[in-house]
Amino acid sequence: MIDSPEYLKKRAFFDSLLTIYGRKPVLEALEDPDLPVHKLHLAESNRKDALISRIEALAKERALEIAWWDRKGLSRISKNTRQDQGVALDLALPKYGRAETYLQEHQGNNYQLLALDGITNPQNLGMIIRSACAGGMDGIILPQKGCAQIDPLVIKASVGTLFKTRILRCERLAPTLKAFAKDGAKVCGLSSHARDTLADMDSDRATVFVLGNETHGVSEATAAACTHSLRIPMHNDVESLNVAVTAALISFRNRL
Amino acid sequence: MIDSPEYLKKRAFFDSLLTIYGRKPVLEALEDPDLPVHKLHLAESNRKDALISRIEALAKERALEIAWWDRKGLSRISKNTRQDQGVALDLALPKYGRAETYLQEHQGNNYQLLALDGITNPQNLGMIIRSACAGGMDGIILPQKGCAQIDPLVIKASVGTLFKTRILRCERLAPTLKAFAKDGAKVCGLSSHARDTLADMDSDRATVFVLGNETHGVSEATAAACTHSLRIPMHNDVESLNVAVTAALISFRNRL
Repeated sequence: MIDSPEYLKKRAFFDSLLTIYGRKPVLEALEDPDLPVHKLHLAESNRKDALISRIEALAKERALEIAWWDRKGLSRISKNTRQDQGVALDLALPKYGRAETYLQEHQGNNYQLLALDGITNPQNLGMIIRSACAGGMDGIILPQKGCAQIDPLVIKASVGTLFKTRILRCERLAPTLKAFAKDGAKVCGLSSHARDTLADMDSDRATVFVLGNETHGVSEATAAACTHSLRIPMHNDVESLNVAVTAALISFRNRL
Repeated sequence: MIDSPEYLKKRAFFDSLLTIYGRKPVLEALEDPDLPVHKLHLAESNRKDALISRIEALAKERALEIAWWDRKGLSRISKNTRQDQGVALDLALPKYGRAETYLQEHQGNNYQLLALDGITNPQNLGMIIRSACAGGMDGIILPQKGCAQIDPLVIKASVGTLFKTRILRCERLAPTLKAFAKDGAKVCGLSSHARDTLADMDSDRATVFVLGNETHGVSEATAAACTHSLRIPMHNDVESLNVAVTAALISFRNRL
């Protein structure tokens, strides 16, 4: 049965897997006892330096399964040959999942989400995660197309908050936003040209705030999927804010 | 007479001079017709490439005084031999001045200022300026000791807002903050350990918000000069925010 409780549980588990890579990020993740780890992947060709020894020791200590691969096999796991340094780690993050599943489970709820469109700078992605987490947003929709993905730089820039934040994956943003709008959510694209401001927004209804690329703003396809357009009112004829700052202002609105 | 109107006017003018350097930043400044420029400084040894030719042409177009120097003389102007690329430019910014002078002229007013303590990352300084400008803060106190200074990286990160923002120089922060406190201003150090939150703050009184170093927070000497301590309430046990994000939340509070 494709939607037996057992199957759904298994799928939810696999959806929660996030593979990180690189010696330093993997070591830091293993050193955090609160992080649920699933499996460690190592290249057989790794020279045993201090970091690798420490990673292996920690894996043993935590009774973690280790899979050994040739370089090619490890690349398939990390999906980043150039930066994986022969090491990858599957995390089983309860807050990491699929936007589609989240929507099914929260239909009609008053969720407040961010959605990212064309955010390609890992530093900004990390800062957005940090701000949204601190501001208490319910989650961040992160499409696989057109956005930076979770990598060591993002983890570093999130300063430990990535693992506390609900990250909702989807393939493309526009169809996902349409599904949320169909559920009755306000889908608000941030734009300096909008008439309405963030202050005009009441938060008693499910809302998805869509943040666009810093230079080009929200893409056309994404804008077409938005039900509202909002701006942040600015002084001194300033035209735009850093996207992570915008994320923070949204996340902390009505809370300061 | 040391405080004759003529002398004070002259001093105010010299206080408003900001020297920037580097070929690209100088060229960008010259291309902005709204920027009041004062004097261009060039090293005699400069090879005449496309950028230098364009800089000289723009200076001629604007009837700008050019001073020629040997390498050593130019270094004394730019105060950054390694990065000046043989080019420096004095801007005469009406919003650039001294904290002391600002205080004299705004005694008892309801000013809202940021003050920076140990902000060493130019990227963050530029983002702070951008956020404070957009949020309508009255100015930013920038001490010469312990903080990044205005340089090409900061100008770039401020995305054109540096020249619209009141930057108030001082030598050391602590004595300056004491002078503001003496004038009756609330001087609020941001600290995650504070009992009061930003929301507890009424804005009907002059306030200086002091932002500390990202890793170490507000220094001891600076904390001793603060009259209040404030925190931004955070969810998910997040301990800190990026300092530019904090600056934005302060600058936009009560405005969203």
